[in-house]
Amino acid sequence: MFKSILREVVENADGAVASILMGFDGITVDSYASEGSGVDMETVGSEYSQVLAQIKQAAQMLDMGTAREVAVQAENMTTLMRLLNEEYFVAIAMKPQGNIGKARYLLRTQAPKLLENLT
Amino acid sequence: MFKSILREVVENADGAVASILMGFDGITVDSYASEGSGVDMETVGSEYSQVLAQIKQAAQMLDMGTAREVAVQAENMTTLMRLLNEEYFVAIAMKPQGNIGKARYLLRTQAPKLLENLT
Repeated sequence: MFKSILREVVENADGAVASILMGFDGITVDSYASEGSGVDMETVGSEYSQVLAQIKQAAQMLDMGTAREVAVQAENMTTLMRLLNEEYFVAIAMKPQGNIGKARYLLRTQAPKLLENLT
Repeated sequence: MFKSILREVVENADGAVASILMGFDGITVDSYASEGSGVDMETVGSEYSQVLAQIKQAAQMLDMGTAREVAVQAENMTTLMRLLNEEYFVAIAMKPQGNIGKARYLLRTQAPKLLENLT
């Protein structure tokens, strides 16, 4: 169930290579990687889970309301993360030239389905 | 000099309210806020400076290369940050419905000018 959504997101966003559903504690619910992606999405997720937890706190502290989405563009990879609730987030790793707009759209529209099955 | 670039970025991106040039140590070089923005950009920058420092390390550790840009979308504010070099970043705060694409473009094109004057 989770896997099929994670797979759908990767397959429908140009340049996406892997995705993961994870807790802010760094524990994976499920993940998907396209063949030969060469991305260890569990390690990526677990590194960024700490960053996201910090951003979540900072946004609250700064009166910005709930943090919804974080995008990190690095030389060789773009990571797009959507915070689902207090406990979980979903992340997608993409090639730098990938279609980030499409990935954002897919994460946003699939988020309610993921949430529904998480709670 | 810095101020005029920071001001230009805010004035030319729809929905942008404030900008800052800061070190990863949380020390401000210069900042600009539009009238009545109500945003304490020094506090925003200093909160996010720690997050950015962590992302910089994570990206290197994960073999993603140098982190270039980070965007955080929260309910009431979007913060777009561009890492300039090992020491400095520039950030812009925007209303959620602001033109993020334009802000990204402006930060990217103004980055070399900021860098030139930082080094």
